[in-house]
Order: sequence, then structure tokens, then C-alpha cells
Amino acid sequence: MTRTLADRLTDYAAVAASLGVDAVALVPGPNFTRALNHSFMSHERPFLLVIPARGAPAALVPNLELRSWDLVGFEGAVFDWRDQDGYDAAFAALMTHLGIASLAVEGQVMRVFVHHALKRAQPDLRIIDGEQAISGLRMIKTPQDIAALQAAIDISERALARTLEGVRLGQTETEIEQALIQALFAEGAEDLSFAPIVAAGDNSARPHAHARADYAVKAGDALLLDFGARKHGFAADITRTVFLREVSDEGAAVYDTVLRANLKGLEVARAGITAHDIDDAVTGVLEASPFADRIRTKTGHGLGRDVHEAPYIMRGNLMVLPAGTVFTNEPGLYDIGNFGVRIEDDVLITEDGCRALTAYPKELTVLPC
Amino acid sequence: MTRTLADRLTDYAAVAASLGVDAVALVPGPNFTRALNHSFMSHERPFLLVIPARGAPAALVPNLELRSWDLVGFEGAVFDWRDQDGYDAAFAALMTHLGIASLAVEGQVMRVFVHHALKRAQPDLRIIDGEQAISGLRMIKTPQDIAALQAAIDISERALARTLEGVRLGQTETEIEQALIQALFAEGAEDLSFAPIVAAGDNSARPHAHARADYAVKAGDALLLDFGARKHGFAADITRTVFLREVSDEGAAVYDTVLRANLKGLEVARAGITAHDIDDAVTGVLEASPFADRIRTKTGHGLGRDVHEAPYIMRGNLMVLPAGTVFTNEPGLYDIGNFGVRIEDDVLITEDGCRALTAYPKELTVLPC
Repeated sequence: MTRTLADRLTDYAAVAASLGVDAVALVPGPNFTRALNHSFMSHERPFLLVIPARGAPAALVPNLELRSWDLVGFEGAVFDWRDQDGYDAAFAALMTHLGIASLAVEGQVMRVFVHHALKRAQPDLRIIDGEQAISGLRMIKTPQDIAALQAAIDISERALARTLEGVRLGQTETEIEQALIQALFAEGAEDLSFAPIVAAGDNSARPHAHARADYAVKAGDALLLDFGARKHGFAADITRTVFLREVSDEGAAVYDTVLRANLKGLEVARAGITAHDIDDAVTGVLEASPFADRIRTKTGHGLGRDVHEAPYIMRGNLMVLPAGTVFTNEPGLYDIGNFGVRIEDDVLITEDGCRALTAYPKELTVLPC
Repeated sequence: MTRTLADRLTDYAAVAASLGVDAVALVPGPNFTRALNHSFMSHERPFLLVIPARGAPAALVPNLELRSWDLVGFEGAVFDWRDQDGYDAAFAALMTHLGIASLAVEGQVMRVFVHHALKRAQPDLRIIDGEQAISGLRMIKTPQDIAALQAAIDISERALARTLEGVRLGQTETEIEQALIQALFAEGAEDLSFAPIVAAGDNSARPHAHARADYAVKAGDALLLDFGARKHGFAADITRTVFLREVSDEGAAVYDTVLRANLKGLEVARAGITAHDIDDAVTGVLEASPFADRIRTKTGHGLGRDVHEAPYIMRGNLMVLPAGTVFTNEPGLYDIGNFGVRIEDDVLITEDGCRALTAYPKELTVLPC
């Protein structure tokens, strides 16, 4: 059954009620896109959708977006503003119209200039960070969400195969990165999920490495690729680590450890488990190895319209994961100055277990290149 | 003369002093990248660099970024935090270490969750929006900045030529968009400046249109392409509007009006002019035409590491523009439900005039396609 705009807005009214505030505010980003089924750019112009716990929603819209806004089919009050007039009057009119005392915002998305504009319009407005509850509505994926994510993953995996076929000793990390990016778009990506990480040798030991234009890959290097295509608004996120021409005994042992940790995640994930318990099981494998001092990250994060979203798969997060949750299972070991290994799958939690949406082979791979 | 990290941090100490606050805080984004000469991702983890007006800078760094942070060569105090511990203790330690009472932040970049973390650590901290002064340091481009931007523009223009050669009647907007994206990366883009706008027919009348998968371009359509490659961290932003197969008299007259407005911008821009005066001259041409009711936007915005940055070229902005400023000169006319035309150049202001960094032809073009 297709849910209407009114249905989706009701979700946010319920969040406001559950948080004990008068309304929820959304700004352009993944929740805004989910609510409206249209995406808008987040730029220097404030753009705000407010959904009260009771009563009609209202919006503050940059004038030059009005013609795109028309496509949304929004029936509430709209307060637009033009560049030459500034936006303070529109904020004041919006807040007077709403007559609310408290507001939950997306703390990870809303920027400080919007927060300040709200406070200028209504100094006594109580603003709380409702990120977790608001974005939590995106945690359980619909069948359409999963189909979109699967399309993004399939593109990503075809691009990875194409890229690895072309890797040759002596190429720089940036050359391989460029080949990967071109392959992603050639395979149908509508955007990158994020700037890809393509890191070899010692650079692979940096979890968020940047490709280097002055490092030529050589025999024995670990080559780590962490990347994803975006399709239909959903973002894939996959990591594979391969070795070039040859692998040391240490490299093979580390790889085997990370792979066992990754497989442990797939073994334990199921509806009803906590995020804590998944991380505990996965990280436990790494801790029981001789390489425990190389642990630098948690197991993973939720995945959907955002590359990083709830649930965060880490110890201490006692959130119970329902069927329909998608998370990244990405244990890694990082030996600073030497090399790193990470193996990352995108995993859908089901009632009786889980299913990896990523299918790219994970056996230890030594590229002939 | 190459400026060191210490030199660049001194710039921000001077901004703090000029704003009358004790320190400036930067979070990952274009100012952070400029200050550190290294880029970091902006994700769910707070990451903060604080530069006091007097005394040594300090940083709050996610533990998993420490090995990338090492490359920066930062000599101040570093407060790191791990996912499993949360970041409140690190914020408290940072603020105790700094001993400041007021802080200027980037209002357009910092998100509310960081603002809230600062206030939890020090409830009496006075936080002001220092966006304009902080980002203002990026307004005057260095020769290296201009070379990077020129490289991004050259890639963009080659991609545009390649894309327009391939346009055929009956293609959808999304097919043309995909061809453009592939051409950008094939020509050497390291990223997109933003999701391209590829809009034909009535969709071209939406300033921030999305390409449609269900609209096939037809003879007589205006086809508007607004896009850019990113290279060496700098973002090109160019728009051209062409007509497919044929153009109506009205289309040609509107195009001529927009072109004259664009040329007026190039005629008046020079060091010492205000942003107001450029917009007034450019928009004045549109207002003097029979199509004045189709004006929907200001003339443009600054361009550099950000696609939209200071100075905003609009009436009421009395900022005097110095040599070295780069801005977009992008007048347009938008007839809702019918068609729109925009012509956008990236313009460098010089002592005695200006120079368009974009060189793609602007004569009325009717594609044979």
C-alpha cells in the first residue's frame, strides 16, 4: 500500500508527541527527502518543514525553490523569502503561525545558522536534539528501500570487479581511485555514496585514508577499497582488501582474522539482537587474536539514504535491532605504518537471521596484476 | 612564499580578535581543509579545531582519525575520544584546557549536535555565528587556488562539449545527465561540484530542477545544463542553455536578454565594486526587458572550495569586492510551465576589470541533434 505525503508527515507528528515536544523540524537531507518524496539541496538558504504533534504542518521555503516545491503537493502554510529581503521575517511569521513552545530538530543535519534564526524569531523556543527518534523512522527499510539499496550495491560490485581487473603494479592510488569512480558511473551510479577510499601499503592502515598521487602500488601491498554507488537515493558502502602479487604470512593471518570476525557478524545478526551484542561478538574475534592492538573502530553503522545512520553497531549501544534494519559489518585491523585490512558487507536483518546484500567474494585474494 | 600551518592558523586567531571573541572553532569542511591543508570527512563524529585569539590552538579528534591527523603536523593539544566512550568527556577536557568565554563558529557548516555538545561542556559559553568573517578568508583566491579552479573548469567544459555532441531527440533528461556525469569523470573530475541540473522544456524553468526519467527531449526544447567538476578541492559551476533543433522567436529573444545581462556583469565587474552594484547592473538588464516578470534569482555567488560561498552577488550586499574574488555571473529568466534560460560564467575580479575563467561559447546555439 502506497503511503501518502499526509501519512508520512503523521509519522513525524508522532515523533514529536513521543519526545514530548510541540513539533519536529526537518531541513534538507535524508529525512526531508523521505518525508516529502522529493529531494532539495542544502545550501546557504534556510529551508524548513515543521510538523506539529497536533495541527497542520508549515514550511519556510526559499522563493527560488517554490516551483520545485509545487511538485511536493504540500497543503500546509508556506512562508517564502527572497534573497534580497533575508529570512528573518519569514522565520518570525512561521513561528507566530505555529505558536509552539518546543521543537525537536535533527542535530546531525541542521546547521547552527538555522538554530540561531529560530532563536532570533522566538528566543524562548526550547530546541532539543531529536536526531535519534527522527532518523530512527528510516531504520526499518521498506521493500522499496531494500530494492534501491540492492541496485546501488550491484552497481558497486560490478565496478569493483572492473577496477580490480585493471590494477597494475606501478599505478598510483589516485589512478586506481579514478578508475573506480569511472567504473561506478559507467555501471549506472547516480552519485558516489562518499569520496572513495583507495589505499595501499601503509596508507591502508588509516581507516579514513586519502588516495595518494605519489604512491605507486607494489608487490606485497595490501590494497583497500572502501566505496559505494548511490542509486535511487540509497547509498551502498562496501570494502574489500586484496593483496598485490603476493601476501606475507602476517598479511594472510591478519586477513583470516578479519574475515572470521566478519563471518561472526553474519552468524549472530538477527531480529532482537542489540547493536552492542553484534559489536561484542565481532570485536571479540579480533580481541582473541594476536592482533588485538590493531583494533581501531567499531563494527559498523546503519545504512540507507545516509552512509552513516542509526543504528551504530558498537558496544554500549543497547538498541534492539528489528527485522528490516540494514547495517555495515566492517571489522578491520590497522597496523600503523605497516598495513590494514577491512572487510565490509551491507547486511539486512531478518526475523530468523540476516542476509548479506553484498555478494562480492571475500576469500583471501592475491591479484596477479 | 609558501605559508605554513602556523601562518594559516594565525589568520583565524586574527578573525577571533576582530570579532571580539576568545576563539574561532572550525569543523570539517572547506575552512578546515584550508586551515590544515588536509581534508577530513564530516560524519556523525564531532571533530573540532579551536584557534584562540591568543595562545595555542587545540583540537578534538575522533580516535579513529588520529593516524590521518598525524599527517597534519599539528603541534597543539589534542583531545581524542573513542566511539564506545562518547565525546562529552573530550569536550569537557577541551573547554577546561582552553579556558575561553566566547567562541565564533561557522554557522553554515557546524551542525546543532556540536553546538549542543559545546553548551553541555560549558553552559555559559557564548557562541556567535562567525561564518562571514571565517569563510571570508577564502574570498581572495591565491594563484594556486585559481589554477585549481581553472583545472576544474577546463574539465567541465570538455565534458559539456562531449555531452552536447551526444544529445539526440527522444533521450530522457536522466540519460543526458548520466552522459554528462560520465564525461566529467572521464575528463578528470575528482568529484562532482554538486548533483548536475539537466532540465529541458518546462523543467528548465525550475532554477533547481531535477532531471526526469520520464521526459524525452523534443524539438524546440530549451535544454539547460548546470554542473561542475571538482578538482584539487575546488568546484567549477557553469550553466549553458541550448535549444534542440529549433528555437522560437520568444526563445531567441529571452536568450538574447539573458546573454546581454551576463555580458553586463563582465562589463562592470572590477576591484572596488560592491556585490550590490554587480547584481543591480545585471538584473537591471533583465528588468528593462519585456521579461522582467520571469526574474527569480540573484546574479550569483562566490565560488571556490564551496560551490556557494561569499560574496553573494545580490542587491543589498554592500560588500566591496577585492581583486582575487571569484563569483558566478548567472542571470536567468524562468517562465513557469514554459521554459527557462540561464547563462553562467565563473568570473575572476582583477584590479582593472575581470576575467571569465569559463570560455565555453555563449552565442545562441541550436543543436542539430
